[in-house]
Amino acid sequence: MDLVWICIIAGLAAAGVVAFFVRYVLKQDQGSEKIKEISAAIKEGGLAFIHREYLTLGIVVVIIAIILAVVPGLGWRLSVAFVFGAICSMGAGYAGMNMALRSNGRTCAAAQKGLNQGLRVSFRGGAVMGLTVVSIGIIGLSVLYLLWHEHQNFLFIIPAYGTGASLVALFARVGGGIFTKGADAGSDLVGKVEAGIPEDDPRNAAVIADNVGDNVGDVCGMGADLLESYVETVIATMTLTTVGVVIAPWLTNLFPGLSTEAALQAAWWLPLLVLAGGIVASIIGCFLVRVGEKVDMSALLGALRRGTLGATILTAVFGFLVIYFLHASLGLFWAMLAGLVAGALMGESTNYFTSYAFKPTQEISEASTTGAGATIIRGFANGLMSTWPPIVLIALAIIVAYRFGSFYGVALAAVGMLSTLGVTLATDAYGPIADNAGGITTQAGLPEEVRERTDALDSLGNTTAATGKGFAIGAAAMNSLGLILAFAMAAGIVTISSTTGQLEPFPEALSLLSVPVIVGILIGALMPPIFCAMTMKSVGVTTSAIIEEVRRQWREIKGLMEGTARPEYSKCVDIATKIALKQMLLPSIMTIVAPVIVGVVLGKYALAGFLIGALATGFILAITLNNAGGAWDNAKKWIESGKFGGKGSDAHKASVVGDTVGDPMKDTAGPSLNIMLKLMSVISLMLAPVLMHFGGLI
Amino acid sequence: MDLVWICIIAGLAAAGVVAFFVRYVLKQDQGSEKIKEISAAIKEGGLAFIHREYLTLGIVVVIIAIILAVVPGLGWRLSVAFVFGAICSMGAGYAGMNMALRSNGRTCAAAQKGLNQGLRVSFRGGAVMGLTVVSIGIIGLSVLYLLWHEHQNFLFIIPAYGTGASLVALFARVGGGIFTKGADAGSDLVGKVEAGIPEDDPRNAAVIADNVGDNVGDVCGMGADLLESYVETVIATMTLTTVGVVIAPWLTNLFPGLSTEAALQAAWWLPLLVLAGGIVASIIGCFLVRVGEKVDMSALLGALRRGTLGATILTAVFGFLVIYFLHASLGLFWAMLAGLVAGALMGESTNYFTSYAFKPTQEISEASTTGAGATIIRGFANGLMSTWPPIVLIALAIIVAYRFGSFYGVALAAVGMLSTLGVTLATDAYGPIADNAGGITTQAGLPEEVRERTDALDSLGNTTAATGKGFAIGAAAMNSLGLILAFAMAAGIVTISSTTGQLEPFPEALSLLSVPVIVGILIGALMPPIFCAMTMKSVGVTTSAIIEEVRRQWREIKGLMEGTARPEYSKCVDIATKIALKQMLLPSIMTIVAPVIVGVVLGKYALAGFLIGALATGFILAITLNNAGGAWDNAKKWIESGKFGGKGSDAHKASVVGDTVGDPMKDTAGPSLNIMLKLMSVISLMLAPVLMHFGGLI
Repeated sequence: MDLVWICIIAGLAAAGVVAFFVRYVLKQDQGSEKIKEISAAIKEGGLAFIHREYLTLGIVVVIIAIILAVVPGLGWRLSVAFVFGAICSMGAGYAGMNMALRSNGRTCAAAQKGLNQGLRVSFRGGAVMGLTVVSIGIIGLSVLYLLWHEHQNFLFIIPAYGTGASLVALFARVGGGIFTKGADAGSDLVGKVEAGIPEDDPRNAAVIADNVGDNVGDVCGMGADLLESYVETVIATMTLTTVGVVIAPWLTNLFPGLSTEAALQAAWWLPLLVLAGGIVASIIGCFLVRVGEKVDMSALLGALRRGTLGATILTAVFGFLVIYFLHASLGLFWAMLAGLVAGALMGESTNYFTSYAFKPTQEISEASTTGAGATIIRGFANGLMSTWPPIVLIALAIIVAYRFGSFYGVALAAVGMLSTLGVTLATDAYGPIADNAGGITTQAGLPEEVRERTDALDSLGNTTAATGKGFAIGAAAMNSLGLILAFAMAAGIVTISSTTGQLEPFPEALSLLSVPVIVGILIGALMPPIFCAMTMKSVGVTTSAIIEEVRRQWREIKGLMEGTARPEYSKCVDIATKIALKQMLLPSIMTIVAPVIVGVVLGKYALAGFLIGALATGFILAITLNNAGGAWDNAKKWIESGKFGGKGSDAHKASVVGDTVGDPMKDTAGPSLNIMLKLMSVISLMLAPVLMHFGGLI
Repeated sequence: MDLVWICIIAGLAAAGVVAFFVRYVLKQDQGSEKIKEISAAIKEGGLAFIHREYLTLGIVVVIIAIILAVVPGLGWRLSVAFVFGAICSMGAGYAGMNMALRSNGRTCAAAQKGLNQGLRVSFRGGAVMGLTVVSIGIIGLSVLYLLWHEHQNFLFIIPAYGTGASLVALFARVGGGIFTKGADAGSDLVGKVEAGIPEDDPRNAAVIADNVGDNVGDVCGMGADLLESYVETVIATMTLTTVGVVIAPWLTNLFPGLSTEAALQAAWWLPLLVLAGGIVASIIGCFLVRVGEKVDMSALLGALRRGTLGATILTAVFGFLVIYFLHASLGLFWAMLAGLVAGALMGESTNYFTSYAFKPTQEISEASTTGAGATIIRGFANGLMSTWPPIVLIALAIIVAYRFGSFYGVALAAVGMLSTLGVTLATDAYGPIADNAGGITTQAGLPEEVRERTDALDSLGNTTAATGKGFAIGAAAMNSLGLILAFAMAAGIVTISSTTGQLEPFPEALSLLSVPVIVGILIGALMPPIFCAMTMKSVGVTTSAIIEEVRRQWREIKGLMEGTARPEYSKCVDIATKIALKQMLLPSIMTIVAPVIVGVVLGKYALAGFLIGALATGFILAITLNNAGGAWDNAKKWIESGKFGGKGSDAHKASVVGDTVGDPMKDTAGPSLNIMLKLMSVISLMLAPVLMHFGGLI
């Protein structure tokens, strides 16, 4: 029997649990009429955005699919795989967001009964996203494998699947990110700051847009992002086995005792089976998230931790079994474990640098007493400093994985890192649901104690979201590196020595110190900052438009401020949608086109340098922006909890500036960088058969 | 005759002009008693700081000199060259700063007569710095050349000279940068913001420290920075000719018609003679800076432009003549010209992104109307966006120079870029003098019209300072790259093909995609953000201490606020000095130690990756921080000129936050990065004979 059927079974099991959770959530009380009404408005806005976004996306996907089909040397299968990847990503994002939109009101209603009920509904709502992503991911890969793995161009076809997923992810992250932060900042500035009314006040026409944003940016975007990492790690691992070389004897060293044929087979099965093990572990992890009757914050956090930690340990065990039964060398287990551990620790490091339970964030709060300038400087310095643990962890994981499993080991480390995605993503997607529930609580005028409970859930969600983001960045970096290596092999830039398993570059051209490579590195290093600048500016444009619209409504709709008339919420959603979709095009197209231009004009060696240069600055920038943003957010919350003068003090005002600055950094620019790095790498890999003929003009 | 005597003559000519300018400035009226008194206090503080800084530095230099002398394989000459480099750098910084300290009061007095007089005194004060640096630089190199160029280890000795200069520059930039911005922010926060008294108000105990800071950071630090670039370009060019290989036939291709011996000789002379030509051009350029009787801002700017542009054209002509008479290939002229032009255009690009005459900065002012958050986001996005022209210009210069002159051409392009340093640095060092003069004007209670004139000079100084900073970064990047290439050759990582003139790496190990190189790139990319985080935090520490001290004086000294008692200015200077010197140690030592550790632990190939990784993120970060900071400063000035509500409006308050954030970025962290990149590269080059034996543990 082809062992890939095990993966399909694991994927179906995840789908089964998803169905169970969906049923569970939908059975819950929807709350009062008011809650239903607000939640319906958010749902309407969210779906309207996603439909429009998918329409734009559909056009881009079709255009690229046609181009791929006609470029000589690629072939129609590649085009089909590309479209399939795009559809999988759209489906995962859609399913996750749809569920989140149905969980927010129910969480709110459940929180009226107690914290534990609120946690359960919101977590299971989030778990639908997590498990849907891994289910779609593994089934999609397995289907492609079963269909075409005996086709001679199989290893050129699967990158197209990744590219399709990646493209959708980029648009979802950038478009959703611009929408969510534009609406958030606009709503806050015109409401809290200008008119002096509370956050989420129903008189503010932008509040629904703000709530919609949490769903389209944080849920849908995050899901698409991680689906992409998930499938691309497998693609990179498979590609690294054989592209461009005859099946290498070193592969049989990693699978001692197997024939060359069998070793290749096992090398393709291994990443898929590790993921299958991770899915089972994640399902168990999801059920480990439960608290007793006596509930406090640390118990809640403990419950989530138990889920992720349990899944991590189980994944290691399953991974060991897979490696044992495939007769693979034990070294590959260490490689996988290096990735798994590095991923978990990266999440912890993000938590340390962004949670107000620790010194770095507390110091930002303290700096706020000297003014907003000090808040920004301290927070930015904190963000820059926070880059060291992830970089060192990734470097160590690479060293360990390489020592034990050559480049195949490095790619397998990325698989290990992503194997627990089901439960990690569940804890992450739970955050925006809790955030939304908090917003609905205020708008529906529920008692203060309910808002306190949803705030507690939200605060916990911030912690898990930070951890999830750290994980997503690390996964993107590992994955991008795997793809770059795969690209280099596919483009015939390097070959793996048939005896040592080490890379053998064609001398000269790929030297770190050759001019094409240096120029490539410099130009590549330039991409992430330009991309961030574009997306951050786009948020500003959206914010201004939202502010104008809310002001217009206050001016023109009589009785709005007195609470006797209703604002036109959908207008704000509409405006944010239009602008976000328009603004997402330029940075996204730049990301798609840049590697192609560099490859054609400067040649494939410069393109390798370009990808590494982008990885270096992109990784650093992504961590800095995410952690600075997260820490500013929590430094404000720390002051709001009564420190340094509490709410309304000068320190609080300074910390609000920090939060405003951090929002587009941590929710638009930073997370989009992950996808940008992966997309540029996977496009290069997909076009490798074409680009290998370009030597460059330098 | 050895042609290097020409360089000594050019250096002496520059020294003669320096003497003439010194005489000119010292002859000027020192102004009223009040001005003399204030200016004396600034001088006292500045000299006290520099003496203490040089004491700390002296200890570090002696320790390192002893280590160098005892490490096997290096030798005493290297140690002597190192100390000589340190002394040259200290001397240049000291001379420039001393002159600046004597020019500030005189500029103030001259500005009482008119704008033109003010410009002349301040510009000539700055020109002393510019010409001193090039004079010391070229004479120092020539002396080393004449002493030891026939010694077999000459090419291992001269990098030590650069390392000595670099080490002093790093301490001067970091220590001075922390001092100046700590004092500036402390003075502003406690004075303007907290007590509501004007900037430079004499009742503020920190004002003198603030004025001292302009001199120790901007003048002394900038001088040491550029002296380092200046000498290191020559060192890199010389090293690239022959280290590690027999004298290569390709060299004779670049000097057609010469014997191998003569070609080597000419290849060593060429960079020195290009610099000599640049010195003569710079001297002429300095005298071109003059305005007629009718003076306005654009005429002032035009005068400075005429100086730099004239020098650039003349340098190109002299460079052509040098190449012609040395019988070098015309290609080398194009290589030199590529660097010269790229340097000039990089300055212009910085001007575009930071001057309020252009859209980017105006947009920051406009964003300020929505609040401080928008100011920061727009400014930061602007800074990120501004990275593209310098990177593209450097990439183009590298491509052109490489095509026409191989790696020797790339190093020569850096020489071309720095050849006009004499006049460029003059226009740059003039800024802080004008800034100081403005401070003294307010403290001495001179009429409003005088302050307006010094403000005009200051504003012009901001523009030239921005241009100068862009130039300094570009020069650092080019220079660092040259040093990395030289390191790779000296460490035996690569050799130059004896026929093609291209690099021939030992296969595998230096491949961009080998694990040591990738790990090296990642760890290297980490250094600049950590370094920035450290220095920015240090500014915060200094600021807090200054604020405490000023508050203490207001509390304890009776009659201070009423103006009947004098604050203890020297206390603030003292505190800032102590903290700055303490805080500069950790980031500086990290910079010195990191390449050594990477080289020993991860090996020489990883070290090459490390240096390139640091260059990629360091270059991007330096441009971003400098330009974001410069633009925030000018966005505030644009609002103060009456736009968007003018002084005191909400937009103005928001723009002040931007300015506060930008200060430590543009005057401490950003410029220090230049030196950090160069220092890590030149240390690697210096230790290459030792590091070449480390293969690394990966």
